[in-house]
Amino acid sequence: MSEVIAIYHSILKNGKIEEQAEKIALGLTVGSWTDLPLLEREQLKQHKGRVVYTEIIGEEEGGYKAEMAIAYPSANFSHDIPAILTTVFGKLSLDGKIKLIDLKLSEALTKVFPGPRFGIEEIRTKINVHNRPLVMSIFKGVIGRDMSYLKNQLKSQALGGVDLIKDDEILFENKLTPFENRISEGKKVLDDVYEQTGKRTLYAVNLSGKTFELKDKAKRAKELGADALLFNVYSYGLDVLQSLREDEEIGLPIMAHPAFSGAMTSSPFYGVSASLLFGKLNRLVGADFSLFPSPYGSVALDHHEAIKTHEYLTATSSLKKGWSVPSAGIHPGLVPLIYHDFGKDTIINAGGGVHGHPNGAVGGGKAFRAAIDAAVSGVTLQEASKTSQDLKEAIELWGAKEVVK
Amino acid sequence: MSEVIAIYHSILKNGKIEEQAEKIALGLTVGSWTDLPLLEREQLKQHKGRVVYTEIIGEEEGGYKAEMAIAYPSANFSHDIPAILTTVFGKLSLDGKIKLIDLKLSEALTKVFPGPRFGIEEIRTKINVHNRPLVMSIFKGVIGRDMSYLKNQLKSQALGGVDLIKDDEILFENKLTPFENRISEGKKVLDDVYEQTGKRTLYAVNLSGKTFELKDKAKRAKELGADALLFNVYSYGLDVLQSLREDEEIGLPIMAHPAFSGAMTSSPFYGVSASLLFGKLNRLVGADFSLFPSPYGSVALDHHEAIKTHEYLTATSSLKKGWSVPSAGIHPGLVPLIYHDFGKDTIINAGGGVHGHPNGAVGGGKAFRAAIDAAVSGVTLQEASKTSQDLKEAIELWGAKEVVK
Ligand SMILES: [Mg+2]
Ligand SMILES: [Mg+2]
Repeated sequence: MSEVIAIYHSILKNGKIEEQAEKIALGLTVGSWTDLPLLEREQLKQHKGRVVYTEIIGEEEGGYKAEMAIAYPSANFSHDIPAILTTVFGKLSLDGKIKLIDLKLSEALTKVFPGPRFGIEEIRTKINVHNRPLVMSIFKGVIGRDMSYLKNQLKSQALGGVDLIKDDEILFENKLTPFENRISEGKKVLDDVYEQTGKRTLYAVNLSGKTFELKDKAKRAKELGADALLFNVYSYGLDVLQSLREDEEIGLPIMAHPAFSGAMTSSPFYGVSASLLFGKLNRLVGADFSLFPSPYGSVALDHHEAIKTHEYLTATSSLKKGWSVPSAGIHPGLVPLIYHDFGKDTIINAGGGVHGHPNGAVGGGKAFRAAIDAAVSGVTLQEASKTSQDLKEAIELWGAKEVVK
Repeated sequence: MSEVIAIYHSILKNGKIEEQAEKIALGLTVGSWTDLPLLEREQLKQHKGRVVYTEIIGEEEGGYKAEMAIAYPSANFSHDIPAILTTVFGKLSLDGKIKLIDLKLSEALTKVFPGPRFGIEEIRTKINVHNRPLVMSIFKGVIGRDMSYLKNQLKSQALGGVDLIKDDEILFENKLTPFENRISEGKKVLDDVYEQTGKRTLYAVNLSGKTFELKDKAKRAKELGADALLFNVYSYGLDVLQSLREDEEIGLPIMAHPAFSGAMTSSPFYGVSASLLFGKLNRLVGADFSLFPSPYGSVALDHHEAIKTHEYLTATSSLKKGWSVPSAGIHPGLVPLIYHDFGKDTIINAGGGVHGHPNGAVGGGKAFRAAIDAAVSGVTLQEASKTSQDLKEAIELWGAKEVVK
């Protein structure tokens, strides 16, 4: 039967976990069961929630930490994210210490979702890079700046050889650097760099504004030749991203930014797990790229959750694979570790690690590219820095974590 | 200057709160300041974030609990909720123990938002009830049931004299009780009851499905004579509700349901305060009714937060006032307390407290109406139950909390 199985972690004062799970399974589906006449049970059977398993997994906060898996029949909800979230974590999200850890969709239900339009392979083809992690850099300090400032920054980043450049997520529609100008003038800058260096860099422009205007703006972006869209999905809604993905007239790669997600993912006791949101749900609704906090920065995502996010984005499935983009606190010296943790199908994303380089953004990009080539070839950064002055200076500034095989 | 001031609570390991606040104010706006040339500072001045105040308000979790107020110029963001949330709590939501407590919008910015289309007064006019709290009841156990089951439940609830009836938020589009049938057949039931009793009850139907189909569905609901729309705003996005509110062709009262909100509001250290979400933001984007957990049930909202939610919905403003609907754990015996806490401009909302009445939903509704009349007239429930057998039985079953003046 088509269904979704939700996995929860909850804190119980007593050990009555099976009782609690049964109460949820009924309360969020048919309401009652044991007191129903047989005939009604027969009618309602296909709508009844089912406890798949329960397990006490620890003691915490003066009680038990429990894991519960509950199956909800697809017959109960329309096959969209808002209906699924409301079913499995609507009222329940308000019901004490309980966190939604995972959703397992049956194959029939998975197929209802689009997944990434391009995914890992087609993005590689666009960029023409096939056997290494990609590197992305981010505009910095662009609020209140004009187009010439922005274009200079774009150019230096591209000249450093990064594969992708993304808008700052807090740069919205504004008079100094309007959305359409960013696309068309940015395109010219990147075309110039391509002619000069032979390296094609993609630019993800921030799609923002009111929900019901997004599709028209995205289509206009497409017309103007935009490479990709950056989208603050958690300030809008996952289903909005899905609609952008599904619109054939848009047809652009979508980069999901984690802005505002911390409101849902940060607590160990409440909300939604980071891997579910950034990994599984982003892929389902169609993000080609999913940004999330790296496990390395000063405010790091739990290492296990970061790896699980990557796994959800890249596991074998009927959907195309999405790019994991662990972000924040990244400098060239971390590349061997990132490569070790995430492999080649990941994007190394840096802001300060590019712009803060002693030789500016150009040097920063080059240092990252050298570090990536080293990691992929199994050469130490120490060794590689002998032939890359930019990498050498990056390591002097930020240090390096070698991964010894 | 038009701006939004965000109030945060954060946990600091050290007492360097001013430093942290300055870092946020710059980091989320112009990026850097002290190292900029004078000319650039002049250019960027109107975009620079500003620390309004900081205060240590306690010790917690082995550190300090701090309150920070930071002002963000309106020039930095487009005037919509996604841009505001991304600006004030985008990356910051992922930055350790920090919770967004409040947003203070300058008057110019407030005026950009629609607020409720009808608000308290016009809903009172529709229902023709002017001097008492309203009472609402909720369908129960309707998944897997057919139209005749639903219509019977609707009829008993209406016969009890409740002012509003809402769909279960987990009832989506389905073959047994399709959205359009619920509206048109529900309307007939309620018209019949009106002819029989003279009492007009409004029915809020659950608007669900994919985001970009909602407007058409809502317009169809309007054509079919729907009274109001129930909307799971947090599974979609606040801006989606705003778009529904702003569409002149829809023009229906909107009831915001708190499903999924617990993912953002429940932690004391992370996320967004309940009063900001349910009170201030719901009113800004245009909810006529805002449901939120009552401070009375088994999993109660903090009493202070519940009252603040009501205050945000009803404070004097250029926007119309919204209805507070404290929900869950409500039975007739709590009415004097609710009236004491929330006053007359609130909605007493019950599921089990209506359907679980010994005389069924009809008895439940009558018991609530009797309890409300008693509370408003300053009569004790004990006294009122002498003339209402239904109230008497409710109190015998659930008890009563009298509020002694
Ligand atoms: Mg940024
Ligand atoms: Mg319900």
